Amino acid sequence: MNFTAAAIAEFLGGDVEGDPKASINDVSKIEEGREGTLSFLANPKYEKYIYQTRATIVIVNQDFKPVKECPSTLIRVKNAYEAFASLLHLYEQSKPRKSGVSKLASISESAVLGKELYIGDFTVISDHVSLADGVQIFPQVYIGDHVKIGEGTILHPGVKVYEGSEIGAHCVIHAGAVIGGDGFGFAPNQENNYKKVPQLGKVIIEDHVEIGANTTIDRATMGATILRKGVKLDNLIMIAHNVEVGENTVMAAQTGVSGSTRIGKNCMFGGQVGLIGHISIADGVKIAAQSGIPKSIKEEGSIVQGSPPLDFTHYQRCYVVFKNLPNLRNQVNELERKVSGLTQ
Amino acid sequence: MNFTAAAIAEFLGGDVEGDPKASINDVSKIEEGREGTLSFLANPKYEKYIYQTRATIVIVNQDFKPVKECPSTLIRVKNAYEAFASLLHLYEQSKPRKSGVSKLASISESAVLGKELYIGDFTVISDHVSLADGVQIFPQVYIGDHVKIGEGTILHPGVKVYEGSEIGAHCVIHAGAVIGGDGFGFAPNQENNYKKVPQLGKVIIEDHVEIGANTTIDRATMGATILRKGVKLDNLIMIAHNVEVGENTVMAAQTGVSGSTRIGKNCMFGGQVGLIGHISIADGVKIAAQSGIPKSIKEEGSIVQGSPPLDFTHYQRCYVVFKNLPNLRNQVNELERKVSGLTQ
Amino acid sequence: MNFTAAAIAEFLGGDVEGDPKASINDVSKIEEGREGTLSFLANPKYEKYIYQTRATIVIVNQDFKPVKECPSTLIRVKNAYEAFASLLHLYEQSKPRKSGVSKLASISESAVLGKELYIGDFTVISDHVSLADGVQIFPQVYIGDHVKIGEGTILHPGVKVYEGSEIGAHCVIHAGAVIGGDGFGFAPNQENNYKKVPQLGKVIIEDHVEIGANTTIDRATMGATILRKGVKLDNLIMIAHNVEVGENTVMAAQTGVSGSTRIGKNCMFGGQVGLIGHISIADGVKIAAQSGIPKSIKEEGSIVQGSPPLDFTHYQRCYVVFKNLPNLRNQVNELERKVSGLTQ
Repeated sequence: MNFTAAAIAEFLGGDVEGDPKASINDVSKIEEGREGTLSFLANPKYEKYIYQTRATIVIVNQDFKPVKECPSTLIRVKNAYEAFASLLHLYEQSKPRKSGVSKLASISESAVLGKELYIGDFTVISDHVSLADGVQIFPQVYIGDHVKIGEGTILHPGVKVYEGSEIGAHCVIHAGAVIGGDGFGFAPNQENNYKKVPQLGKVIIEDHVEIGANTTIDRATMGATILRKGVKLDNLIMIAHNVEVGENTVMAAQTGVSGSTRIGKNCMFGGQVGLIGHISIADGVKIAAQSGIPKSIKEEGSIVQGSPPLDFTHYQRCYVVFKNLPNLRNQVNELERKVSGLTQ
Repeated sequence: MNFTAAAIAEFLGGDVEGDPKASINDVSKIEEGREGTLSFLANPKYEKYIYQTRATIVIVNQDFKPVKECPSTLIRVKNAYEAFASLLHLYEQSKPRKSGVSKLASISESAVLGKELYIGDFTVISDHVSLADGVQIFPQVYIGDHVKIGEGTILHPGVKVYEGSEIGAHCVIHAGAVIGGDGFGFAPNQENNYKKVPQLGKVIIEDHVEIGANTTIDRATMGATILRKGVKLDNLIMIAHNVEVGENTVMAAQTGVSGSTRIGKNCMFGGQVGLIGHISIADGVKIAAQSGIPKSIKEEGSIVQGSPPLDFTHYQRCYVVFKNLPNLRNQVNELERKVSGLTQ
Repeated sequence: MNFTAAAIAEFLGGDVEGDPKASINDVSKIEEGREGTLSFLANPKYEKYIYQTRATIVIVNQDFKPVKECPSTLIRVKNAYEAFASLLHLYEQSKPRKSGVSKLASISESAVLGKELYIGDFTVISDHVSLADGVQIFPQVYIGDHVKIGEGTILHPGVKVYEGSEIGAHCVIHAGAVIGGDGFGFAPNQENNYKKVPQLGKVIIEDHVEIGANTTIDRATMGATILRKGVKLDNLIMIAHNVEVGENTVMAAQTGVSGSTRIGKNCMFGGQVGLIGHISIADGVKIAAQSGIPKSIKEEGSIVQGSPPLDFTHYQRCYVVFKNLPNLRNQVNELERKVSGLTQ
């Protein structure tokens, strides 16, 4: 599909500066602009790229004043970033959507299927599963017994959902994610062996949750492991049994949360963060990448770093001294020598 | 299924205190007790919950003396935790078990199949595979050529087992785990490229091993990567080529063990621990979460933390000073000023 | 298959010392030598094992002078390691290769298929996919629309490749890896919810790349996430959207690279390393395991450790003082006491 600058400007209610017939069929970042693509300039830090980009059309803010000639056709709008994002959403929605139920899927007769579903090849829908309208399940997905999935949720190829899990509406779960595997619970017995503690709980995922590729969410021992509305998890994250993650909390890749920990809402965790079990994290807490959290964080909105964590700026100050420790030690030894001289 | 307090007490050889007809159909933690559930109180720290729980029935120790009224029906037994755990196992065993060999699986004619198997839809059983009695293989599992699996072992959906791997009896392997992928071995050549070193060894997993979701166990370059009897691995763990993990060693999620490292028995590793290759860890060593281990640990039963690790309590003491480093530096600078005054 | 010492020596152009009819059917490391296996001795550190190994045949360097009797038959060659490696490659190539297109695969009529393909059971080849000659795709793999795969590339069981991804020739992708999942991009809106930023870019993997089990490579927001020629990634690695990894760069397991970071060529990263987004790493940089990289590294060939990283040897020196911090603090306090005495 090709779109002209004139058509895009009309859609956005903007003004063309340059060739209204210039046309694009893809998008690009302004610093990587290629011919035939549409880009945008919002952040002034990137202004230098607009004078050299090869993007055919660039959306800019109404008040943008170029200091040199721009090689691209410009479209001026009120808010360049929002206008561009709205085009991306439009483009995405215009892509052909997978639909229909594959004859190569295995679907239990007891499953309750909504309307306008997509179920791909070699997917398994087990007994008493309930799929709401518009659910899209790609190939090679496994849905265990008694699983419920809400309206419009998308499961990418190879997702595995163990029995009894509940997934809300408008969620996206990426390839290879595992929902509802057993919690890691073993009790040592007299012979120093471990005996498995049966994991009889489940996983509840509320609406608008996104889960990254190969992330794992374990079922509760009893009760439920819960991801509240709007939670966004990146790839390769581990959420252990009986954890609760609050609304709109976001975690970057490879973070791990141990069993029974409760995380507030609107938190942001960097990548490779680790949290011990049975603690609580207040609302709005930000944890820097690779931090290790051995205790509850009670103050809302704290920003922490380290393992165990300190206040972010305090950690930075300590680390400055750490980098200088050999000098500090030498300084102390020199002082000792001098003081020793004075006291003799 | 519903069970009455009378029936549960009879099974456990315990005494009912309250309504013998009170009935439950699920279990709960005492602090999350819901109506219609059975709970237990063993740890005195949780006693406060028994006066407010909504659990319909609570199992308690014979000698439990309430200081207030308990809203639930109680069942008194010798050991409340063990009694509850035995009920969980009973409940789990009573759940309907998957059985039968799916017509939608692909099973080689050369495979040797035991009795009372479950093989799910879209699972592949390759040439010369041997499955002992009672093996349960969920849908979409891949079993490569010449793989052997022992009695009663369960492979959850989507597990991938490369050719030649040997898995013992009564193991549980969770969804998405990969057993027997190539070790990471490359030799640089003259042109600064890497040439793959063929990975011709295998993986041996002994009896009673549990492996978490999306964990990966690489095959040996030559010989075998070995998980000894009773090893328990959580999710997203990496065990590299030629590693050996000793009996009943337990590792939490996202830990990684590099090639050819040998780990003793009865060790416990926290989450996100990393071990370098070609080292040995003695029996009974405990490693705190996120530690990094660059050298062998020779003392049995050591408890270590840090990267590189120190004795656990020593690390804690060092970290206390680390948190105070800016003050320590100021103190030293002040001393220097004073001593400088004295020596002038 | 059995091979005699005479046959192996003839193939390698070497000389037998011992029984020319001694025969082997497997390989082993010299320290783990078993009867009926072939081993080698190249590194003098391992010489002690040649006097006790149970390997039936051992390949040694021409100039090797035993100081005791060797129990094995020896084959003397110019370079023992290279000779052994060439046998491993020969052995690997001699293994029966999977071939043919399974009738249990689901292959779109619009897919363009090369010659001498292997496509396993329950694999999905979607619309407009292009597979070059000699591609081997194991069972339960998903190949999305418009994906291109180059000559001789191998995809192990359960690999998931999202639409539009491009994979070069002679690549190896291990089980459970996910190529082309959505980048982790969300924009907060007025109600403090996150709105998904459409991820419209793709993944480009050049020739001779190897990707480990359960590793995830996210698609770009716009443009492409790129793995250059010869990149080798271990298991459970996360490569985020719009990252570029330079030629022949190697990463150990569980490392994570955040969005839009550019990594030079010939770099080596240890396991569990984390890199923040939007930074650049120069060519030939080595990063120690578990390091955290919050800033660009501009000097080619740097060797760094820590989080944030320091020069490797500097970090080691700082850590020596860190381990001694309680003593240093006591030393400072003692000095303060003395100086206080002097100044009174």
